[in-house]
Amino acid sequence: MRDLTPKEVELRNFVKSTIFFVYKKFGFSEIETPSTEDISLLTGGNGGDNEKMLYKILKRGEKLDIANATNESDLADLGLRYDLTVPLCRFYANNRAKLPSPFKVIQIGSVWRAEKPQKGRFRQFTQCDIDIIGNKKATAEVELILATSAALVEIGFKNFRVRINDRRVLEGLANYAGFEKTTHDRVFIILDKLDKIGIDGVENELKESGFPEDAIKSFISVIEKSTAEKLTIGRLTSLLPDLDSEVLANLAFVMDTVSAQANTNYAIDLDISLVRGMGYYTGQIFEVEAQDYKSSIAGGGRYDNLIGKFLKESIPACGFSIGFERVISILEAQNFEVPAKGDKIALLYDVNISAFNNLLTKANELRAQGNIVSIETKSKNFTKQLDNLVEQGFNFFGVYDESRPLEIKPLSKKA
Amino acid sequence: MRDLTPKEVELRNFVKSTIFFVYKKFGFSEIETPSTEDISLLTGGNGGDNEKMLYKILKRGEKLDIANATNESDLADLGLRYDLTVPLCRFYANNRAKLPSPFKVIQIGSVWRAEKPQKGRFRQFTQCDIDIIGNKKATAEVELILATSAALVEIGFKNFRVRINDRRVLEGLANYAGFEKTTHDRVFIILDKLDKIGIDGVENELKESGFPEDAIKSFISVIEKSTAEKLTIGRLTSLLPDLDSEVLANLAFVMDTVSAQANTNYAIDLDISLVRGMGYYTGQIFEVEAQDYKSSIAGGGRYDNLIGKFLKESIPACGFSIGFERVISILEAQNFEVPAKGDKIALLYDVNISAFNNLLTKANELRAQGNIVSIETKSKNFTKQLDNLVEQGFNFFGVYDESRPLEIKPLSKKA
Repeated sequence: MRDLTPKEVELRNFVKSTIFFVYKKFGFSEIETPSTEDISLLTGGNGGDNEKMLYKILKRGEKLDIANATNESDLADLGLRYDLTVPLCRFYANNRAKLPSPFKVIQIGSVWRAEKPQKGRFRQFTQCDIDIIGNKKATAEVELILATSAALVEIGFKNFRVRINDRRVLEGLANYAGFEKTTHDRVFIILDKLDKIGIDGVENELKESGFPEDAIKSFISVIEKSTAEKLTIGRLTSLLPDLDSEVLANLAFVMDTVSAQANTNYAIDLDISLVRGMGYYTGQIFEVEAQDYKSSIAGGGRYDNLIGKFLKESIPACGFSIGFERVISILEAQNFEVPAKGDKIALLYDVNISAFNNLLTKANELRAQGNIVSIETKSKNFTKQLDNLVEQGFNFFGVYDESRPLEIKPLSKKA
Repeated sequence: MRDLTPKEVELRNFVKSTIFFVYKKFGFSEIETPSTEDISLLTGGNGGDNEKMLYKILKRGEKLDIANATNESDLADLGLRYDLTVPLCRFYANNRAKLPSPFKVIQIGSVWRAEKPQKGRFRQFTQCDIDIIGNKKATAEVELILATSAALVEIGFKNFRVRINDRRVLEGLANYAGFEKTTHDRVFIILDKLDKIGIDGVENELKESGFPEDAIKSFISVIEKSTAEKLTIGRLTSLLPDLDSEVLANLAFVMDTVSAQANTNYAIDLDISLVRGMGYYTGQIFEVEAQDYKSSIAGGGRYDNLIGKFLKESIPACGFSIGFERVISILEAQNFEVPAKGDKIALLYDVNISAFNNLLTKANELRAQGNIVSIETKSKNFTKQLDNLVEQGFNFFGVYDESRPLEIKPLSKKA
């Protein structure tokens, strides 16, 4: 976990507010859930591998009996959330009566995972999710993809690629190849590494895992054929003839609609090798790949059975999450400058000023005109002070001296 | 800890962004520290009573040895922050080389305290702090009071009262009354209850605690005289003749300057009974009392020795914190409505729509004009749907039917 300096927070605030602004325009509204949840919710099997990275919170007062504790569940009653999806399901189940249906919801907040420290991974990080709960039609997928893409375009991303697949297409692929039903999840875990290890790597790992040669050959062959040229629904049908027609019709609807709306800003591509790690997905899954950056900057999909575990009733749901930290690190690598709103003026005054009130009044006048105005004592090393002000993003300064009119001068590196 | 619904989050976002906007205009910049800190920082004695309400996080992996654990410190290595001041001092000590001096800093974030559940108290709540680090002059106090007051005015608070005192005036009062030096803190803890128990209550509690009758009599008498009419620096000097002249000059400077800037929006009053709980304050302390609401909505003061505990060097510091949750609960009690930005339009469509793309294009056109546009399937119970949309804050709707031009109609409770 790390500290964020003013420059880092400024960029993060810009990206957050841009995403939020776009999501609001699409009619989504924001909720907040607590950072901590009951430990039973966070260890219920819906968080996948994230459950292994749970920060647990020690019981307090009389509840804590160290002498008789034998395992972690004797000691902890709360945990820090590792994602926003599991808490959202709990929220929806608890608050359903108060919520519209369908419920279009924004969540922007911190999550915590006790990961091994590595570059670009943090133990506390921000997630930006939108979800639509209560719409079983593929219009939900369309809205999520359009809203997420619009947010990325608004931030400044261009020519990115939305990859789309359906869990039932993946199942069809594994069935077609001849993998046994019970082994599908293991096959998909290996396929999920395609971006990192390549198609040969996937083939080797399937072999090393002892899967049948025939199934592997057929599986790899279909994937290779699928990527030979742009994959249309027509080509998919010829590669995997037994796919459900409604699944295909929904994929076609989403791809056609998103393509039509995307203009030239981005593209949507069918990709039958797309897996998405979480076990709760039941239908379409999608991921956004930024131009020039291999890893994904957003991901999501339909999870129609998850909320049903909390309510005794099945509720369709679909979500899309922007990889906020990844977006930030890409922008930082590009030396992205947050667009300035108004000017940033430093008003410098002598430490023995007798008319501090006049200075404050002047500062307020300039603020009322839309400027950021910081009053600062004039330091002995004036040149160095001006350099420091530039460093902090000030673009104007004035030295306040009650004996003459205040002159506001531009400030630049060469000052 | 609690869930926050869209309406609640909307109000909170409005208040947060209003405060943030004002603080930015005053030249403050935002930082973020992690929600968790090393447990040694949070149990180092600087958090006062808050340390007793610490949420501790269980060690992980090999570090956790339950069998041989005998106390909490064997089990926990991190804690959830209970305030933003202690983390700020740690942040400043760690990042000082990168930061300007003076450092004018905003922090808006969650803190956690394992309080007994009671009305209006939450175990996770938001704090909004500004601090100026590195300015030993009372211009820091002036800036903090003006910025905080400007934020409160911008939110809509009127005719509030800034109460100001100085820890050294309190000391002077206790010395004058004749309380022994070592008992001052206990006297101040009792005086701090004045708002709740009244002057007679303070007197009785001091008696019950066994303090000398003479000292109590003198102490109560000075406080009563101080509140008989508006307390000026002149009157204070006659009540407590031994106060340090620099302390008085600084109080006069802050009060005069703030009064001049406050116009008729708020007032600043010297109040020698103001204590402020935290032990780390060293100089001026202040609190904002909203009209018609007894408890404070903001509080702060100078803490010149706290950062020095983390650096081997004394660094002056001063801060002001808005009681965010208190502000929210006052606004909610007033049925405060967040000012609308643009219109909120629901575009309703028949579930069997064939021209979904045209609808999406129409929605985007309306969004580009500055509106919030949510597309929704038209439900069978149309009247109820319109009522629900009003409930969600929509003020316009249109029924999309490709056979005729889209008509956007106003939406109101009676629709």
